[in-house]
Amino acid sequence: MYGAQALVKTLAGCGVRACFANPGTSEMHLVTALDQEPAIRSVLCLFEGVATGAADGYARVSGLPAMTLLHLGPGFLNGGANLHNARRGFAPTINVVGEHATYHRRFDAPLTSDIEGLIAPLSAWTRVAQTAGDCGPLAAQAYGASFGPPGGNAFLILPADAAWNEGGVVTAPEPAPRLKAPDPARVEAAARAIGAARRPALLVNGAALSEPGLSALARLAAAGVNVQAATFATKQRRGAGRYGPPRLPYFGEMALAALDGVDLLIVAGCDHPVAFFAYPGKPSELTPEGALRLSLGGAETDSAAAVAMLAEAIAAPAAPDVAPAQSFPDPSGALDPTTIGASLARHMPEGAIVSDDAVTSGLALFTLTQNAAPHDWLFHTGGAIGQGGPVAVGASVAAPDRKVIALLGDGAAMYTNQFLWTCAREDLDVLTIIFANRSYRILNIELARTGAGNPGPVAQQMLSLDNPPIDWVKLAQAQGVEAVRVADAQSFDRAVAGLCARRGPALIEAVI
Amino acid sequence: MYGAQALVKTLAGCGVRACFANPGTSEMHLVTALDQEPAIRSVLCLFEGVATGAADGYARVSGLPAMTLLHLGPGFLNGGANLHNARRGFAPTINVVGEHATYHRRFDAPLTSDIEGLIAPLSAWTRVAQTAGDCGPLAAQAYGASFGPPGGNAFLILPADAAWNEGGVVTAPEPAPRLKAPDPARVEAAARAIGAARRPALLVNGAALSEPGLSALARLAAAGVNVQAATFATKQRRGAGRYGPPRLPYFGEMALAALDGVDLLIVAGCDHPVAFFAYPGKPSELTPEGALRLSLGGAETDSAAAVAMLAEAIAAPAAPDVAPAQSFPDPSGALDPTTIGASLARHMPEGAIVSDDAVTSGLALFTLTQNAAPHDWLFHTGGAIGQGGPVAVGASVAAPDRKVIALLGDGAAMYTNQFLWTCAREDLDVLTIIFANRSYRILNIELARTGAGNPGPVAQQMLSLDNPPIDWVKLAQAQGVEAVRVADAQSFDRAVAGLCARRGPALIEAVI
Repeated sequence: MYGAQALVKTLAGCGVRACFANPGTSEMHLVTALDQEPAIRSVLCLFEGVATGAADGYARVSGLPAMTLLHLGPGFLNGGANLHNARRGFAPTINVVGEHATYHRRFDAPLTSDIEGLIAPLSAWTRVAQTAGDCGPLAAQAYGASFGPPGGNAFLILPADAAWNEGGVVTAPEPAPRLKAPDPARVEAAARAIGAARRPALLVNGAALSEPGLSALARLAAAGVNVQAATFATKQRRGAGRYGPPRLPYFGEMALAALDGVDLLIVAGCDHPVAFFAYPGKPSELTPEGALRLSLGGAETDSAAAVAMLAEAIAAPAAPDVAPAQSFPDPSGALDPTTIGASLARHMPEGAIVSDDAVTSGLALFTLTQNAAPHDWLFHTGGAIGQGGPVAVGASVAAPDRKVIALLGDGAAMYTNQFLWTCAREDLDVLTIIFANRSYRILNIELARTGAGNPGPVAQQMLSLDNPPIDWVKLAQAQGVEAVRVADAQSFDRAVAGLCARRGPALIEAVI
Repeated sequence: MYGAQALVKTLAGCGVRACFANPGTSEMHLVTALDQEPAIRSVLCLFEGVATGAADGYARVSGLPAMTLLHLGPGFLNGGANLHNARRGFAPTINVVGEHATYHRRFDAPLTSDIEGLIAPLSAWTRVAQTAGDCGPLAAQAYGASFGPPGGNAFLILPADAAWNEGGVVTAPEPAPRLKAPDPARVEAAARAIGAARRPALLVNGAALSEPGLSALARLAAAGVNVQAATFATKQRRGAGRYGPPRLPYFGEMALAALDGVDLLIVAGCDHPVAFFAYPGKPSELTPEGALRLSLGGAETDSAAAVAMLAEAIAAPAAPDVAPAQSFPDPSGALDPTTIGASLARHMPEGAIVSDDAVTSGLALFTLTQNAAPHDWLFHTGGAIGQGGPVAVGASVAAPDRKVIALLGDGAAMYTNQFLWTCAREDLDVLTIIFANRSYRILNIELARTGAGNPGPVAQQMLSLDNPPIDWVKLAQAQGVEAVRVADAQSFDRAVAGLCARRGPALIEAVI
């Protein structure tokens, strides 16, 4: 058995079911090995940022790593921004990076680069398969390593001769590590501190935002704890009948207002909050001054268990009932994030998965859909825009029977617009909604917030996506995805209703 | 003066005239500083790979570095593949990478990453501006460092507080280093070796492929030296009346055939040739076994001067006249790289710049255009496809009065299709020709060459861009670029004739 085959069969045996790939010459034996492995769905992506973002989305929905296939250093670089995002959301990924044959490296051919050096800052685990015999064992290790805890990017660098030589051995899976159980002593300390605090608060991310975590959070809120969800949660369960914790605001001054008067800030599944960016004269840390800081454990901890234990420890009351359903009024008038959110709330099917890369448009959408049919919301995790479309691809491959809705700012969607082609190729049930404000709107806000002065004509052009406006209908159709442009609330509502009622890739350009 | 302003004014004073930018919140003061600097043309790119590839193209045409503006680690990563390519072509670039404020880094906000670590493998020079006072001096140093020799990627990491604080000082330019003069001893040794060799050969890249270099190469060829141009030259001057050295073939066995019997291989402006990839059982080195290897100097050397000195040293005869012009027959029949090449040869205007990322389609085009009107040919330098469109953007900004023709494989063009929007925004005189074979054609060849076996259905799908076919006319129109699809030689010829006769961005989808 050749090395690439041992690698692929080992990963299949571990439970890997998807490979998001952009192959090159040095990965031809991997392509053949994938061809021979029916357990793994091979998905071609026309840009590596789609492949890595898809692996992120796949992991967030399934809890399991997918494989990516990247072509040497440049393949990694093209996929790097979404691996940065995956790292920030602690998604497990297994990235097989093709490399020149071991004996060929020293000749410094044009595609040679220091792959290990490039990868290191984003890597939770990196190994190089020096021989075909390394491939199986390292693949099994990569699978385990991707889980952490917390989850991270595992990189297996595969020289072409290790891939093509005979001597590969399929290796049995190792037990995959899981999130750590909470430390009872920390829970006890937090419970005591809550008893002593005037205004205790709790900031959560990770498993605490799953169904069982939300139940515990609802009890804690009922006990008077100011519960806040992380601004950019990895995955949040939501919908009618569920407790919806407030979301810590993005802008620092608003976050501080949400925590005003707090004298105890406990975190679970995350660290204490910091501002996304620095601004002249504004604080970087968002924990109120003088507040006691406690942690039930960071991203490596099962934060659902932690908050459940905390609710028990303080003998929190049962959660109050949340109104199980609502009717939503017909949206009408101008198309904006508010009317769009109302339409989504009306039509999002049960079990939908939302991938949110909507930047300035996202906040209203999130708020308005709290009482929609039960769904999962995947946030942008690492600040590198261009994540949402690729994440939607992976989410749909992980859950082909669920509707995936990608909410994308036009500036963000442009970075990785090639995800549309993969939606068409794989007939993914992804509805993409483009918020076409024809601007890097967030930067118009940030320009003022950073005190960089009034934008002159050059600066205005640097933040504007107009001139020419991007025609998203054509951009989608060019890649085989049905698309429509709408500019008023009623048309949008009709379009969403129709496209949510049937399956298959589609795009709505919402001109706002 | 704030730091960002000192940086921009210093670079303007050094002679930087273009900034290819994709800004974010941490770069708002840079945007304002660019707004206040009329000497620098700020060009917005909707993906950083366009910005970095454009800087490469700008440098290859003008000989001078442009500035890029990248947003933290992910901005670098998105631009990384084309910086790899720029590095391989020794193009000088100055990359200003925004970073969190110095005091904000330790809070590990979502966009934080080890930027210096990520950058290192592609960097010729990297510094971090710790204060506003650092900005001017480091900008001047970055300018000088980008020239090498050989040219390379200079990175100036700019924390937001260094950008926004007062204390910036405009710094006077340092003398920019130039290519090294050839070593006369090496030239003498090479001349003696030619005298002793039965079949001497010379492989060149760099300045040797400029107008004066070609004259010397023609003399050396007339003296019986087997002259070969590097497979992927940085820039090659060509056209009617000029000597056109053969191009060392891409596939190793063909390269070895081109050097068959050679007992002396001299190189100038490059290293001795190696195979682009390894293949089982095939050699990595392409210098014929037993041949003597000599070098007139690598990429750091003025190879035009080197070959001129060599021609003198061996008292090479005057170059024979090359027929100054040709008439080209009307192409007709099927559309393929041969008929496309014939049309290009007929209609390419004098002074055109060709950016070649046409992969399998490129060879015939190159051969057939040797006697077209005088032009420059920019090759793909580093093997990371997606270079050609961005390079065309930069070439056009560097030479706005010259027609730029981007020859792009469909698979390659897809990686960085956002370059089309910048062509429209800036009204660049770029004619893009897409070779729509709807496949990673090269990989279909490489699959066989690597012995990876017969492709099954999964492998076939991984190498195919059909299902769905990409509609390049819509993809261009979506981004504001006029476009037409042609499928026969006569229609193509008419389209090229029309679009070469007028200025402005346009795209032809050539279905081959």
